[in-house]
Amino acid sequence: MSLQTDIQHAASHPEHHFNSSEAIRDIVIGLSDGLTVPFALAAGLAGAVTNVADPSHLVVTAGLAEIAAGSIAMGLGGYLASRGDTEHFESERRREQLEVVERPQDEEAEIYEIFEQYGVDRASATPVLRSLQANPTAYVDFMMRFELGLEEPAPGRALRSATTIAFSYIAGGAIPLAPYFLFSDIGFALRVSVVITLIALAIFGGIKGRMLGSPLVKSALQTVLIGGIAAAAAFELARLINAHS
Amino acid sequence: MSLQTDIQHAASHPEHHFNSSEAIRDIVIGLSDGLTVPFALAAGLAGAVTNVADPSHLVVTAGLAEIAAGSIAMGLGGYLASRGDTEHFESERRREQLEVVERPQDEEAEIYEIFEQYGVDRASATPVLRSLQANPTAYVDFMMRFELGLEEPAPGRALRSATTIAFSYIAGGAIPLAPYFLFSDIGFALRVSVVITLIALAIFGGIKGRMLGSPLVKSALQTVLIGGIAAAAAFELARLINAHS
Repeated sequence: MSLQTDIQHAASHPEHHFNSSEAIRDIVIGLSDGLTVPFALAAGLAGAVTNVADPSHLVVTAGLAEIAAGSIAMGLGGYLASRGDTEHFESERRREQLEVVERPQDEEAEIYEIFEQYGVDRASATPVLRSLQANPTAYVDFMMRFELGLEEPAPGRALRSATTIAFSYIAGGAIPLAPYFLFSDIGFALRVSVVITLIALAIFGGIKGRMLGSPLVKSALQTVLIGGIAAAAAFELARLINAHS
Repeated sequence: MSLQTDIQHAASHPEHHFNSSEAIRDIVIGLSDGLTVPFALAAGLAGAVTNVADPSHLVVTAGLAEIAAGSIAMGLGGYLASRGDTEHFESERRREQLEVVERPQDEEAEIYEIFEQYGVDRASATPVLRSLQANPTAYVDFMMRFELGLEEPAPGRALRSATTIAFSYIAGGAIPLAPYFLFSDIGFALRVSVVITLIALAIFGGIKGRMLGSPLVKSALQTVLIGGIAAAAAFELARLINAHS
């Protein structure tokens, strides 16, 4: 409840809005992939590797390898993408800073062009332009946001984003894998994994819907659907490969 | 070269900019995850499942199950996320449309607040405000972009994004898996997979860097690093599990 209030509150305050919604996006991305992919892989293998001495052990090995690979790939990938965003923002800002000084006529034309899109004529836009020209820092900030649509990435965001995604992926992946760790009867482990993972997907999808303001049941059904289809496809594909070999 | 020119050109035209950079982002996301995770999973399993009759076959089964699961999870996830963005944009727009009519004073205050952030005083902002008030559609569009920082998602983007991500994932995943399909000697297949995947990661990272305007070599090294670390971690983890069982 306090989280929802926080988000509704944040929605009316852009600066805050972006930070909390980005953190939530990271958790959502990590958790949903962590729940879905290891679940589907484990289900796929469980249906295929029946001729091995200890199939549950094999599924756990593959599942943990997937969680290690997936969390690192997503976390590191997220880290470098965020760093890239920061670098892109800074190089664009340097370019704007130069343009404001070296090509003032072009920048004027761009300001008029921005306002024209909203039916604001030159005469009405001129006082804003003069005010910006008196304050070069604000001028550059204005162009970054209103010409290029770029937000300054929060400092430290890259590392925070990477760890949030990676740990959410591990937390998500632990759920479908636990039954294979606990039960050596692979058929039983598969059924338990399917049940608890679909429940977890429904709960997590519902929470996500509640946070993002979309209908709770619809969001729960959507995440269950993604996980279910991915797992069914992996299961059938793995069975087909083994039937033909 | 034409792609790069296209992107540089696009950077100065926001509307276009978002479409092409989003498609590139989808390909980058799908390809990099598709190259990295199946590669790391296959390497992890190859190092662990030495006591099985046909280990290459098992690695291919697990790898294909992972590609099926990963491409569906990412594609469907991307589809629903894009649809969510569109719904979010439309619900925010309806809210703004109401606010412009029902709470004109609050909207005025918000406009002044936006301009104040850039050192533009009320007197200079008033002509813009009056102009927007004369044109409610433009007023709402202005608030969507400048108060909330929201861009209208391109129509049809959700489906395009989903298929782009899914097929990029499959294309990426086919590269590290091919050697296990071709060679039944698991140690040899692993070495070939490592070599061709690292080469593919370097080429793809370089292209990505060139497209996004960051240094080619740095970008190539980064993607090789992510794939290499993820694969090494999966390999070591899977070996540890099997050594202790």
